[in-house]
Amino acid sequence: MLPATNTQVLLKTRPHGVPQAEHFEVVQAPMPTLAAGEFLVRNHFLSVEPAMRGWVNAAANYADPVPLGGVMRSFAAGEVVASRHPGYAEGDRVMGLLGWQHYAVSDGTGIRRKVLERDLPLSLSLGVLGINGVTAYFALREVGEPKAGETVVVSTAAGSVGSAVGQIARAMGCRTVGIAGGPVKTALCVEAFGYDAAIDYKNEDLAAALARHCPQGVDVYYDNTSGPITDAVVQHINRKARIVICGTASVASWEPWPTGPRVERHLLNKAARMQGFLVWDYEHRYEEAVAQLAAWVRDGSLRYREEILDGIEAAPDAIAGLYRGDNLGKRLIRLV
Amino acid sequence: MLPATNTQVLLKTRPHGVPQAEHFEVVQAPMPTLAAGEFLVRNHFLSVEPAMRGWVNAAANYADPVPLGGVMRSFAAGEVVASRHPGYAEGDRVMGLLGWQHYAVSDGTGIRRKVLERDLPLSLSLGVLGINGVTAYFALREVGEPKAGETVVVSTAAGSVGSAVGQIARAMGCRTVGIAGGPVKTALCVEAFGYDAAIDYKNEDLAAALARHCPQGVDVYYDNTSGPITDAVVQHINRKARIVICGTASVASWEPWPTGPRVERHLLNKAARMQGFLVWDYEHRYEEAVAQLAAWVRDGSLRYREEILDGIEAAPDAIAGLYRGDNLGKRLIRLV
Repeated sequence: MLPATNTQVLLKTRPHGVPQAEHFEVVQAPMPTLAAGEFLVRNHFLSVEPAMRGWVNAAANYADPVPLGGVMRSFAAGEVVASRHPGYAEGDRVMGLLGWQHYAVSDGTGIRRKVLERDLPLSLSLGVLGINGVTAYFALREVGEPKAGETVVVSTAAGSVGSAVGQIARAMGCRTVGIAGGPVKTALCVEAFGYDAAIDYKNEDLAAALARHCPQGVDVYYDNTSGPITDAVVQHINRKARIVICGTASVASWEPWPTGPRVERHLLNKAARMQGFLVWDYEHRYEEAVAQLAAWVRDGSLRYREEILDGIEAAPDAIAGLYRGDNLGKRLIRLV
Repeated sequence: MLPATNTQVLLKTRPHGVPQAEHFEVVQAPMPTLAAGEFLVRNHFLSVEPAMRGWVNAAANYADPVPLGGVMRSFAAGEVVASRHPGYAEGDRVMGLLGWQHYAVSDGTGIRRKVLERDLPLSLSLGVLGINGVTAYFALREVGEPKAGETVVVSTAAGSVGSAVGQIARAMGCRTVGIAGGPVKTALCVEAFGYDAAIDYKNEDLAAALARHCPQGVDVYYDNTSGPITDAVVQHINRKARIVICGTASVASWEPWPTGPRVERHLLNKAARMQGFLVWDYEHRYEEAVAQLAAWVRDGSLRYREEILDGIEAAPDAIAGLYRGDNLGKRLIRLV
């Protein structure tokens, strides 16, 4: 029996920089009805991730911004509860751009995949077996191209992408050094995610710590932050180093566009490269990554952390919380 | 009959930024004598190139700085005039790091190659058939990876590297847009080097001109300048664009390290890359490039310009002149 209304989180005003709770509103909308070719998903988990800042800003980005008054764009995982679509049946588990809402209608557009790993928690399809894990898998391997014996530095090392990057790099035979904020996260890096060393950028001299923990220099820098952390790491890169630009979490706003030390000379002197990564470019290989990641999760070699907020009312402040750094692990909102 | 003394240009004081005439002194040194395994080269042409700024600065670079009181490091081309080395005979033409001097002793170290193209001017071994041409050839093809139909933008487009880049890109079926300073150089770009369009960054609105001349965006940016030109081009890159960092001619000094708009977000949004190029990484393939470049020179499809200064007394001011932008074509000092 479906409820009479559908709770949704709408974008109310357009933020400059990090969206705060006040930029959203929680509303009750009518329950949608299904046209032919559509199906209804009950969302179990909503995703919260740094990239969502970009989805609501007006600045140039890799996707069109969420319109004002629209349901906040978000990945979510749920179960099909009604269907007039031949490809989706009641009981199917799906993950995709279903938005910050209890129920979502889809014609298949925006569905990333059916979640077939019924032996594993559905929430993993939004984290270590979702965009985060798939991003870590391809960005590290295909752009970072780490080789055994090399030193891999990861920023936001305890985060949902970073923690997977560190573990995959270590499995590839690399020395892994994580950068995270605060003693809890750095302890997590070493104890839970197997980093060889972790640097607390909030309480340590980053340059000195990098020199100490990367005695052979940095071959791969997996960058989730940009900003001063990146500026410090770039000073330590080796010849032919690869810098993977996966996120810019430390930059609160791109209006006005921030400045920093020019990278060109570093890249030239070291014949190094800096390359952006968008997971959409690997859409056709998504299942390959999930299969491998799921195998590692099952055999215990890939660990993950989730931080679960309960109820859709937690959504509006949830992105801001990421940027305050007050989360530990993949942040999710549980609805069921 | 050899002269009694050898004229040399020594590094007198260490410049910050671009070396000026006052940082050098021209001296008369004793003529060297040959030990077993050595040979004497009479230099015919000395090279002058932007990278030489880096060779005299104290700042971190890809080579140790020239010591104070040492002969200025430079590529030169000349003829063996005496030899006690089994691999080099009188009359051999060689190119290598022979320094700013009339005569150089070598044991083979620093010799890049014997110049075998006796049908072509020896000076070309320092330009279009030398480091400049080889750099253009590999950096464009292996780092830039242009595909037919793509738009390639080149900074210092009329220079000795840039002019070769533009012509090679055009031969690969690309739309080529050159950026140069002043109407003489932009005319040269279009008329001599076959660029589809040229932008005079000193007298045009660069952003507007880029938008006009790159209606399909920029797929490859071959960057010899860094600085505001690069900042403008980066705004126009396409998805999966490749930025080749080959030089930083527009940055007068790296002490203090200059700042600029952060590139990370551009690279991320476009899944683009920025990569430094050092020609030394292609040393093992040098002859492959020279053979191809020489064939293009012979059949007229690769054009070049030289700007020849006469006499070693022109050397001390010659690097500063490059950075003033008052040269047209590969700058050389002719001694013979």
